[in-house]
Amino acid sequence: MAVDIDKVRSQTPGVRNRIHLNNAGAALMPQTVLDAMVGHLNREAEIGGYEAADEAASDLDGVYDSVARMLGSSRDEIALTENATVAWQLAFYALKFQPGDRILTARAEYAANYVAFLQVAERTGVAIEVIPVDENGVLDPEALERMIDERVKLIAITWVPTNGGLRNPAAAVGVVARRHGITYLLDACQAVGQMPTRIDELGCDLLTATGRKFLRGPRGTGFLYVRRDLLLTLEPPMIDHFAAPWVAGDRYQLRSDARRFETWENNYAARLGLGRAVEYALDLGLQEIEARCGILSEQLRNGLRDIEEVVVHDLGPKPASIVTFSVAGHTAGDIKALAARYRFNVSASAPSSTLLDATARGLPAVVRASPHYYNTEEEIDSFVQFVRNIPRL
Amino acid sequence: MAVDIDKVRSQTPGVRNRIHLNNAGAALMPQTVLDAMVGHLNREAEIGGYEAADEAASDLDGVYDSVARMLGSSRDEIALTENATVAWQLAFYALKFQPGDRILTARAEYAANYVAFLQVAERTGVAIEVIPVDENGVLDPEALERMIDERVKLIAITWVPTNGGLRNPAAAVGVVARRHGITYLLDACQAVGQMPTRIDELGCDLLTATGRKFLRGPRGTGFLYVRRDLLLTLEPPMIDHFAAPWVAGDRYQLRSDARRFETWENNYAARLGLGRAVEYALDLGLQEIEARCGILSEQLRNGLRDIEEVVVHDLGPKPASIVTFSVAGHTAGDIKALAARYRFNVSASAPSSTLLDATARGLPAVVRASPHYYNTEEEIDSFVQFVRNIPRL
Repeated sequence: MAVDIDKVRSQTPGVRNRIHLNNAGAALMPQTVLDAMVGHLNREAEIGGYEAADEAASDLDGVYDSVARMLGSSRDEIALTENATVAWQLAFYALKFQPGDRILTARAEYAANYVAFLQVAERTGVAIEVIPVDENGVLDPEALERMIDERVKLIAITWVPTNGGLRNPAAAVGVVARRHGITYLLDACQAVGQMPTRIDELGCDLLTATGRKFLRGPRGTGFLYVRRDLLLTLEPPMIDHFAAPWVAGDRYQLRSDARRFETWENNYAARLGLGRAVEYALDLGLQEIEARCGILSEQLRNGLRDIEEVVVHDLGPKPASIVTFSVAGHTAGDIKALAARYRFNVSASAPSSTLLDATARGLPAVVRASPHYYNTEEEIDSFVQFVRNIPRL
Repeated sequence: MAVDIDKVRSQTPGVRNRIHLNNAGAALMPQTVLDAMVGHLNREAEIGGYEAADEAASDLDGVYDSVARMLGSSRDEIALTENATVAWQLAFYALKFQPGDRILTARAEYAANYVAFLQVAERTGVAIEVIPVDENGVLDPEALERMIDERVKLIAITWVPTNGGLRNPAAAVGVVARRHGITYLLDACQAVGQMPTRIDELGCDLLTATGRKFLRGPRGTGFLYVRRDLLLTLEPPMIDHFAAPWVAGDRYQLRSDARRFETWENNYAARLGLGRAVEYALDLGLQEIEARCGILSEQLRNGLRDIEEVVVHDLGPKPASIVTFSVAGHTAGDIKALAARYRFNVSASAPSSTLLDATARGLPAVVRASPHYYNTEEEIDSFVQFVRNIPRL
């Protein structure tokens, strides 16, 4: 069933104030997510922080079920984290590398991940190698297959890069990883909430994502999926007594579930908000969301391509709902600021966000406009019209 | 000027519902902290998460100034973190150890820290040694002095342990650490917000703390202080592109301030709440807060000591505002649950929280009652009366 636009907009306070095309930054939260957080914070103030958590224990526990349901995983394979970067770091830094080992990654890999590769390469001597792209700029699974040897210890890619519209073939990469028994870490930060993200289809061992982007959850939330058969082999890079209870003077015992990657203390209001956001997306249906995101982003892309001064920088067939472009004679930062004056929310994305890709493609800072299902066709049209007028503003 | 109890209570919604003696768990937030958070979350829903952060940029920036003012440090020595454990982990795991190096810690060290010691000992061969206590059970700085040799690479202690009422002599430890040029990591989680916490008096190189306890800030907040002359020598155990911008294909550049220990994404509402909590404490005055906490906790301790079936387990002269006790024939968990029925909020603290100390002292699980300045003498009396009645309940 198609998304009921009037209904979801009536449940989204922000659409009254802004034309929000910054869903790849942080989407507008639905009222239910806000209510879950504010309700819990009020309760903390009313009866105490620990006491409110005790009261909400069942709902808090249910967040693991919600995330697991979205991923098609088991709840004991899920850790909730401060953000997607922390989730990714905890997974990546738990892996062990020797000199001569190889990490294969994507050309449009996100800066957060790449600097971590560099740090670990310095520490361990592991080599970082970029998987070639095909003629459309998309990661090429056949090229990946040709790179595989016994020294490849990790394939770590971003599914939907932070800009460029690209949708890397995460599932095809999973097939290669599974065939060769190579650990596969998938950064699904920009994918979760705008398309189905099922572990069985992806074939990844580790998946990380955020709450605040297309999932429409709170800032300061993220999660990590760890495949069960990998879990017990991974020692978290840092531990506390929640991850690893202190069982004797000289001994700790790591938890047997993915929460060995968590710490004891958390922002419970944010967790409850995350749970609500996941349930909200599941109720709408991620295939329906994906379909509508595809329609709106294509409308936007096509509209922008018709403007003489605009270059659309998106790559690949069936791109994700992230539209990146530049306008001759105007910086991305200027356009973002100008757009804000007309109540359009967009981002400016610097080349350093995806430095290898930006360098290879000679990309400037780009404007990133990322529609979500709750945007309307009229909003997209009005934004295209705004961009068309930029040279005359 | 003494704390105006009526005023602070009128600013604390929770005192209408509970007699909150769980400030060592999470204190009741003042209305201003709640307002800062709820206000920002509403704004995120109204105009977008990134846009709300832009709008609040100055307030968010000011949180560093607030924390620095409380510590008497420079703002570039402060990192804001998800919680105190993460702050402590980021500092501790950034340190380098060789086989034969020694870490000196306190007998009542917190479980979170101790399991991290054990993990790093396994990895590096560093030895963990406990500083003896004096006849009052307090860490003995003279004994510490006698332990020092060139192999001691770190002194890491908890200032106010999670239970036991103890107040370790953090400043005297600082004198020893400074005299010998040994890195000193101070866990101030239970100290911040109930007493002055000035870096120049403490002599520590690294200090970690939480927002939610005596500081009365939000759950899911913490901070790390890193002395400037140590900062540039510390590479964080994990990095992202905020900590270390990606400046060339094969190179990152660590930030020059303490925010090299942060990640890009954060819970901004919680940060704003933390800033408000710090300002609120500073406005009241931490010496005034300490004085009143001392009065109330001593009243509680003395009242409990008068009860035949009760053993108070607190240690040392001038104990902190954490009162721990047991009642013959009743488990701590039972007492906590029973107390809740009478609207008293307390905690039960297991031996595994401070395993070495609990083992040395043969401690059972203890009830932890931790008053704060906003409690009243009548509340303390009523709790003592409640405990007196337990054998008859």
